Amino acid sequence: MRNENRLRWWIWFIVLLATLFFLGFIIGWFAKQTHENTASNGVSSKYLREFLDEMQPNQIREYLRKFTRLPHLAGTEQNLKYAEEIKKDWQDFGLDSVEMAPYDVLLSYPNTSQPNYISIVDQFGNEVFNTSLAEPVPQGYEDVSNIVPPYSAFSAKGQPEGDLVYVNYGRTEDFFQLEREMNISATGKIVIVRYGKIFRGNKVKNAVLAGAKGIIMFSDPADYWASGVQLYPDGWNLPGGGVQRGNVLNLNGAGDPLTPGYPAKEYTHRFSVEDGVGLPKIPVHPIGFDDAIHLLKKVRMNIHTNNKVTRIYNVIGRIRGALEPDRYVILGGHRDAWVFGGIDPMSGAAVVHEIVRSAGRLLSEGWRPRRTIIFASWDAEEFGLLGSTEWAEDNAKLLQERAVAYINADSAIEGTYTLRVDCTPSLHTLVYEVTKKIDSPEEGEEGLSLYESWHKRDNWTQDRDAPRISKLSSGSDFEAYFIRLGIAAGRARYTKNKKTELYSSYPLYHSVYETFEIVEKFYDPSFRRLKAVSQVRGGLIFLLADSQLLPLDANQYADSLRKYTQSIAQLAQRHPAQMEMYEVSFDFLFSAAENFTVAAREFHERLQTLNRVRIMNDQLMYLERTFIDPLGLPGRPFYRHVIFAPSSHNKYAGESFPGIYDALFDIENSADPEKAWEEVKRQISIAAFTVHAAAMTLTPPA
Amino acid sequence: MRNENRLRWWIWFIVLLATLFFLGFIIGWFAKQTHENTASNGVSSKYLREFLDEMQPNQIREYLRKFTRLPHLAGTEQNLKYAEEIKKDWQDFGLDSVEMAPYDVLLSYPNTSQPNYISIVDQFGNEVFNTSLAEPVPQGYEDVSNIVPPYSAFSAKGQPEGDLVYVNYGRTEDFFQLEREMNISATGKIVIVRYGKIFRGNKVKNAVLAGAKGIIMFSDPADYWASGVQLYPDGWNLPGGGVQRGNVLNLNGAGDPLTPGYPAKEYTHRFSVEDGVGLPKIPVHPIGFDDAIHLLKKVRMNIHTNNKVTRIYNVIGRIRGALEPDRYVILGGHRDAWVFGGIDPMSGAAVVHEIVRSAGRLLSEGWRPRRTIIFASWDAEEFGLLGSTEWAEDNAKLLQERAVAYINADSAIEGTYTLRVDCTPSLHTLVYEVTKKIDSPEEGEEGLSLYESWHKRDNWTQDRDAPRISKLSSGSDFEAYFIRLGIAAGRARYTKNKKTELYSSYPLYHSVYETFEIVEKFYDPSFRRLKAVSQVRGGLIFLLADSQLLPLDANQYADSLRKYTQSIAQLAQRHPAQMEMYEVSFDFLFSAAENFTVAAREFHERLQTLNRVRIMNDQLMYLERTFIDPLGLPGRPFYRHVIFAPSSHNKYAGESFPGIYDALFDIENSADPEKAWEEVKRQISIAAFTVHAAAMTLTPPA
Repeated sequence: MRNENRLRWWIWFIVLLATLFFLGFIIGWFAKQTHENTASNGVSSKYLREFLDEMQPNQIREYLRKFTRLPHLAGTEQNLKYAEEIKKDWQDFGLDSVEMAPYDVLLSYPNTSQPNYISIVDQFGNEVFNTSLAEPVPQGYEDVSNIVPPYSAFSAKGQPEGDLVYVNYGRTEDFFQLEREMNISATGKIVIVRYGKIFRGNKVKNAVLAGAKGIIMFSDPADYWASGVQLYPDGWNLPGGGVQRGNVLNLNGAGDPLTPGYPAKEYTHRFSVEDGVGLPKIPVHPIGFDDAIHLLKKVRMNIHTNNKVTRIYNVIGRIRGALEPDRYVILGGHRDAWVFGGIDPMSGAAVVHEIVRSAGRLLSEGWRPRRTIIFASWDAEEFGLLGSTEWAEDNAKLLQERAVAYINADSAIEGTYTLRVDCTPSLHTLVYEVTKKIDSPEEGEEGLSLYESWHKRDNWTQDRDAPRISKLSSGSDFEAYFIRLGIAAGRARYTKNKKTELYSSYPLYHSVYETFEIVEKFYDPSFRRLKAVSQVRGGLIFLLADSQLLPLDANQYADSLRKYTQSIAQLAQRHPAQMEMYEVSFDFLFSAAENFTVAAREFHERLQTLNRVRIMNDQLMYLERTFIDPLGLPGRPFYRHVIFAPSSHNKYAGESFPGIYDALFDIENSADPEKAWEEVKRQISIAAFTVHAAAMTLTPPA
Repeated sequence: MRNENRLRWWIWFIVLLATLFFLGFIIGWFAKQTHENTASNGVSSKYLREFLDEMQPNQIREYLRKFTRLPHLAGTEQNLKYAEEIKKDWQDFGLDSVEMAPYDVLLSYPNTSQPNYISIVDQFGNEVFNTSLAEPVPQGYEDVSNIVPPYSAFSAKGQPEGDLVYVNYGRTEDFFQLEREMNISATGKIVIVRYGKIFRGNKVKNAVLAGAKGIIMFSDPADYWASGVQLYPDGWNLPGGGVQRGNVLNLNGAGDPLTPGYPAKEYTHRFSVEDGVGLPKIPVHPIGFDDAIHLLKKVRMNIHTNNKVTRIYNVIGRIRGALEPDRYVILGGHRDAWVFGGIDPMSGAAVVHEIVRSAGRLLSEGWRPRRTIIFASWDAEEFGLLGSTEWAEDNAKLLQERAVAYINADSAIEGTYTLRVDCTPSLHTLVYEVTKKIDSPEEGEEGLSLYESWHKRDNWTQDRDAPRISKLSSGSDFEAYFIRLGIAAGRARYTKNKKTELYSSYPLYHSVYETFEIVEKFYDPSFRRLKAVSQVRGGLIFLLADSQLLPLDANQYADSLRKYTQSIAQLAQRHPAQMEMYEVSFDFLFSAAENFTVAAREFHERLQTLNRVRIMNDQLMYLERTFIDPLGLPGRPFYRHVIFAPSSHNKYAGESFPGIYDALFDIENSADPEKAWEEVKRQISIAAFTVHAAAMTLTPPA
């Protein structure tokens, strides 16, 4: 019995050992598995809180002050100096790597020995009045050199002389009205238009199409004075001598006009300037209101601006992802400014600087995001989004496969009312989630979240009870990432009350008066609004980079697509008789959107139970890519997003289904309505195909 | 002390338990890890062996017999019946799913009430000789109906009458010689050319460019008779009454001429036939040699062929991947034939059938590949690769993200000499590996592997001591996958001795005499050659689908790129003076290739030690994608591969760097050499950019 007992003891002992071993094995197995497979978001909310709390108004103020002391136009020495300072700071903050990414792109500067101006000429050809050569320099900046005088970058050279015709905002409809209702032709004339409503490059395009031989643009107080606000320096309204600078290209996303589709590197073939993309063929010049009121029927333009291939510098910083180094989350904003860039772009660049500092702080405490984060300080945005587009072209193949999202960081403030977010629908849910974690920056709203403050001030009542989020349009550095490459993208800034403040953008936009002082005195004296924007932008990249499951929401995309299909179909329904005659139907587009809705819902249901995170994350990441058509929109090879792109007719409109929209727009002016409707049908079919294909990418992968 | 002992005992006991638990944990942890992380290939060689051994000559014979009894032209009832049989068989073999993928594409058929023919007319306009309306029907097929008479699919209708001019093969150089050396213009003439050397569609394009009003193509015995071989049915040479059918489109990868870029579905917009892609504007007709020798100076063509939108059917079968269901390995080949399709394509389709059966057998034994395998039976290849291209367009967004490789399965035999493989360079190593596991099918070569037999017969001595592998060109269903989408691709078949057998393709190509009997009697009586091809195609998809680490070799791509850069630069060096005058340099392209070589070497070195398999596999998978330029080659939006695409001037040439090649070709005939050389430089720059970008994708991901 003793032996038997001992045997029994040994058996139990071995069973115990085996059990323990097995237990260890199982725990080891699943401990490993949880790395990839848990459905929970898996993000460290402790680190997120710490990250958001790290951001400081005073730091943002310091950075804004530091980077707005001197003019730093793209291609100038000072803008390179700022690039070098940013590079050094980002290294000191603790990024894993920071590098310069230079490109040689076509820029445009006034001729320093022959100034640009407009004259009134008398019957003998004498110049009896000339517009100012520069804006009055703001107080405190009297000793600053290198302030570029107001000009229209990429204007053609020339000294056209002729009758002046006023064409309101220079929109397509303004030129039509002139011709059809007032029976005035712009052909051979110099046209004068006021700034606002559409992108200035489109005004120039319309003037060229109308046959004008020159175009003058001015800032009308009706568009650039907010009521009850003093002129600079006592307030933030545009003085009569202030002028809006800006480029007048029609690039449609091409980047450097001489190297469309390819990065402007040493070895890259360059088209001649005559063959460059989007360069206007007529002289263009901007003036202020004080000059505009003097201009009479007949003027002469004197434009000597030069195009010049110039080196520009992006600064690219990285935090290497711990688990998915081949997945990129990008925060990019530009650094170059027309003069000081008090708002545009340095309010945004200061915010990025503070986000990088805060991320560096987390790194030093042992945090490392799941995915790689890329920070970019773009150059030459003001000359046509050149720095960001060249880098996108340089890295297109990597970004195509690896980029998860792009968050844009241009001007962080343009008003004092509430938050403004434009983003792809799949980011809606994340934006709400992030803003709920941030405090309202407004006085008297202690205890309110940014979400609540925003919701109260700008409720999206028409569609849903939540803060309004708008479509991404164009006009800043996200273009190449979103509209060309199909990377989920968004932007956030502080804005004005759109319902009551009807002036165009912000009055001092692109003038010499965009200084540090307008932010410090008027827009955000406590710098708490900029801190809030910093937390929104930073919170977005944190969660995109660190959540195990990508925080992208296909259901939101489905909701938006259904709305867009309804809205574009309603536009077509303005022509019911022709719709019937040419057998135009939106049915297949409607059913594609329904189909997508089902696929999105089922996808998110599967997310609850399935555990192949990388596979499902890829489906989410590539969802936006699905909307890219490599053939591009008609005549615009670099605008490839079938759902979101500016209409050809209104660059800032951000229409959904731009192909259909443009085709419908053309109906009105087509000499061959059958052909025009055929194009509408073709565009509907492309949209339906694209939405169907998007739904396919959400179905189980095999 | 007793207590102390007991304590000591307990301590040891607990240490033991803890150790065992820890050991279990560690083993569990790493056991889990080996799933993803071992560097070894991890493929089951037992299953591979079983898969290869499962394939049987008699099964292939049976399938070939079964699917060649009746004519099965694309768009006919019989071809749908075969599709349904294939679908049922594949389901019975055990695939996870089999579905039909129908499209409505433009096809072209002779008018059944008005036959096509060529006449000789006398001075009164009477037809004194007419070419045959059909080929003499082969023995054993006398009762078969629905044999389509010889015609040129997509010919324009018309009855042009005029002088006949012979233009050799109808190549660009043949037309030049006619005009420059013989001073004969083809304008307003009907041209007659012999088949061979280039794709027939290019002959038609050249004739149109030369101003011809009709084109006749005939099979010259010099090109379609092998020496010492009898005419059908006593051998496999083309009888004098035999004619080669074929389409005469210039699609350049567009697929269905009416829906370029999009799948031809119910809702898809269709261009009118006048606006369709690649449709010839003049009548075209093919004749046999017996008719050709009668044709005199003046002829009339009578062509009544109709274009018609017709439903076609692909059959798509799937085996769901066990671990990576979102990674696709595709084996596709066409089913439609001009008549019986004894070689083209059913020798290939029978082989696919046998591969599917063998894979099903493995599935029934518990095997399941790591990745998803897709089998495709394409329709309407003969009408311009329509079925495969429409499916690629339908699934482009999925394939772009998920497709690992595409193996083509057109005709499996065209000669009795040895193996022929055309593939992307990254597949070279795998092809050698697979062929070493397969027996030579040749009599007297028992004990020799297919690799050894192939090596002996077709040594690639110029470059390396290994069997020759050629570049992929065009002309079969891999086009949309490889040249448009950038998916690694290859094809394998049994071939003739290219050094001694100089006739064009195989003599009976596209004639009614392509029957089951020519394979059974002449090409492969034992069906062992077809079995070997079956094992090659099957072995490739097995290893691509089941190897843990993708069996793609970037080093091979690097070797090839260096050779191609040398070779294209040598071509340019034929014009040394102009190279200097226009400052044309290949230096950046050379350095890009060197740079790629280093990146590839370092990538494969890292593969030895790094263990993030999915990340590195993605880098390998997307390598081929890197060579795709969404802007396409000049004027050819659907040929997007910068390294491999047919030259515009010789569709079957498979030139490397087609953009540079075409630009160099144009030098010779350009009225503006400066502009032409500018285009050469632009193309070099695009090539250098693309190779640089490819190298970037191989570097560590962050």
